[in-house]
Amino acid sequence: MPAIEPLVESATLLVDLEDRSYPIFVGQGTLETVDFCSYISGDKALVVTNETIAPLYLEAVLKRLKSKQVDSLVLPDGERYKSLDTLNLIFNKLLQQKHDRKTTLIALGGGVVGDMTGFAAATYQRGVPFIQIPTTLLAQVDSSVGGKTGVNHSLGKNMLGAFHQPSAVVVDTKTLQSLPEREFSAGMAEVIKYGLIADLPFLDWLEDNIDNLLARDSSSLRQAIERSCRNKAAIVSADETEQGIRAILNLGHTFGHAIETFEEYSGLLHGEAVAVGMAIAAHLSMLEGNIDIADVLRVKKLLQAFSLPVQPPTKMLEKDFLSLMMLDKKVLNGSIRLVLLKTVGQAYVTDSFDHINLNSALADACAYSELN
Amino acid sequence: MPAIEPLVESATLLVDLEDRSYPIFVGQGTLETVDFCSYISGDKALVVTNETIAPLYLEAVLKRLKSKQVDSLVLPDGERYKSLDTLNLIFNKLLQQKHDRKTTLIALGGGVVGDMTGFAAATYQRGVPFIQIPTTLLAQVDSSVGGKTGVNHSLGKNMLGAFHQPSAVVVDTKTLQSLPEREFSAGMAEVIKYGLIADLPFLDWLEDNIDNLLARDSSSLRQAIERSCRNKAAIVSADETEQGIRAILNLGHTFGHAIETFEEYSGLLHGEAVAVGMAIAAHLSMLEGNIDIADVLRVKKLLQAFSLPVQPPTKMLEKDFLSLMMLDKKVLNGSIRLVLLKTVGQAYVTDSFDHINLNSALADACAYSELN
Repeated sequence: MPAIEPLVESATLLVDLEDRSYPIFVGQGTLETVDFCSYISGDKALVVTNETIAPLYLEAVLKRLKSKQVDSLVLPDGERYKSLDTLNLIFNKLLQQKHDRKTTLIALGGGVVGDMTGFAAATYQRGVPFIQIPTTLLAQVDSSVGGKTGVNHSLGKNMLGAFHQPSAVVVDTKTLQSLPEREFSAGMAEVIKYGLIADLPFLDWLEDNIDNLLARDSSSLRQAIERSCRNKAAIVSADETEQGIRAILNLGHTFGHAIETFEEYSGLLHGEAVAVGMAIAAHLSMLEGNIDIADVLRVKKLLQAFSLPVQPPTKMLEKDFLSLMMLDKKVLNGSIRLVLLKTVGQAYVTDSFDHINLNSALADACAYSELN
Repeated sequence: MPAIEPLVESATLLVDLEDRSYPIFVGQGTLETVDFCSYISGDKALVVTNETIAPLYLEAVLKRLKSKQVDSLVLPDGERYKSLDTLNLIFNKLLQQKHDRKTTLIALGGGVVGDMTGFAAATYQRGVPFIQIPTTLLAQVDSSVGGKTGVNHSLGKNMLGAFHQPSAVVVDTKTLQSLPEREFSAGMAEVIKYGLIADLPFLDWLEDNIDNLLARDSSSLRQAIERSCRNKAAIVSADETEQGIRAILNLGHTFGHAIETFEEYSGLLHGEAVAVGMAIAAHLSMLEGNIDIADVLRVKKLLQAFSLPVQPPTKMLEKDFLSLMMLDKKVLNGSIRLVLLKTVGQAYVTDSFDHINLNSALADACAYSELN
């Protein structure tokens, strides 16, 4: 990638995907220091953000784009707006302002804004470039990297979408200082996930740095985000369109998506639902004979240290999980595929687990939650 | 492509796109003779068609798919249904019937069905395979080949979409026997286009075979479709995502899309609008000094031989064209790009034509149409 080398030099990380490679800039104040405007090849851009983020950072971003003709669009905030209807608001804006196929979209916000803006970029005039400026921990360590874009359907989460890699990802750890506590915790679920699926030393480090992270110490946050992105970049570079190994990034997600769909995206946050899902996956991994009870407790303890839930919502039953899990994208020819732990620090994808164990793990999780 | 070689041997043509290569089967009765079921890798499929085509061919197609679990969806017929709303009907069906990412979509119908089904396939669970069974001449020679998929937006045609190549294209010339005359003519506009942009011998052949084609002689149709697909396949193989040469396939389309948008997709058919557009493009090519008046008359005469219009709708003015053309996807950084003829049989893409000539060509076309 000689063409973008000078820019990449200053980046923290590179997602290596041949002609679709791109840098991830991670640091304190990158919104002011990184020249992300140089990633816009045309004259025009549209910044898409939401009503929570706009008052905080929109002006700062627009200031950095003064040399371009920039429009902006402020969407309502929340997972329930991640729909085809909201996507159409982006298309309306682009067409009303006569953006052509040389335009660049800029996603300024959390995972919902990033996923929708990315999908709009993937499909506007059959594809235009986009830049991710994630402002939540979850988006910074997970959804902004890897090119998965999409919207929800009332019958299932992320059912509509495309693979479309951004041109650059700009992570400013400063934006985390204003993040509500629950959302910070939800992001930590995905951070912990990297330790569980592929990086035991990182898991150890997280356990040693709980207090620093909870205090949102700038240097600790930077390290946690960089390490998370490095793990994600390596996995995405190896398997861009999830033909194999990339699926381990979904640890806890099949259970988590079932919870989110059950609650119609208005209960647990995505990261919280994933935390519950990882606890169930750990339990099932134990029943499958891979790890022992101490490992399961270790997983739950770390999640709980960040105030994350480890049990499903009270009203959710085993059968709710099973029927909703059949809609998961990892279901192939009717059989459920799950990400389980071989050991703490190593995940695998399988459809040949014992269904009695799955039923036990779910029954156990739901029984506990009934007691809450 | 060793994996699909045995199947490709019997195909008429191959679109050569490395791991996205696919066969086009052209012939009389291919719906009964081609084993398109072998292009479905999973257990499930969804046939998408419309209310006009369903009574004619749906049963025959379903009969060929007996070894699979097949659902079908019948959409309303017409370009005005090529929208995000109709797309959502396809998603609803897929989710209600629990189709997973191993499903295959089958587009049975004209360009609208093919474009929408292809776009649904491109975005359902971030992409599933699809098969094209085009039943109109226009779809057989143009829209079913090349992987352009999408829907219209009220502010512009084909504004939302994706490149997504089919797994196979099955063209049965028998289906043309039931095609209404106006739709047959509309398809001939795209056939003539291949002669104009890249294949003078084919244009000569078309002029010699007007009567056979109008009589829908089976052998002549097969030759015309095969030659059209061969031209399209060569251009698509050279430039899959329209970075350059592929744009010549849009001869007449920038003008044509303006007409379609002006009439809100309820006046001229797509092929008819393209015919008018090609006549204007030929006129402008003359004003640019590339071809002479005899060439322009030759183009118009051939179009008219197939009952195609060569003038815009009466109420449409020069300024309507200009403002609507600014929305065309070929507009880059605000300047209009057009496909013009260097000679009859050779097209090129340019944004450096004389705008006075464009205005003259449009004024002339609109003045004539006022006289109608």
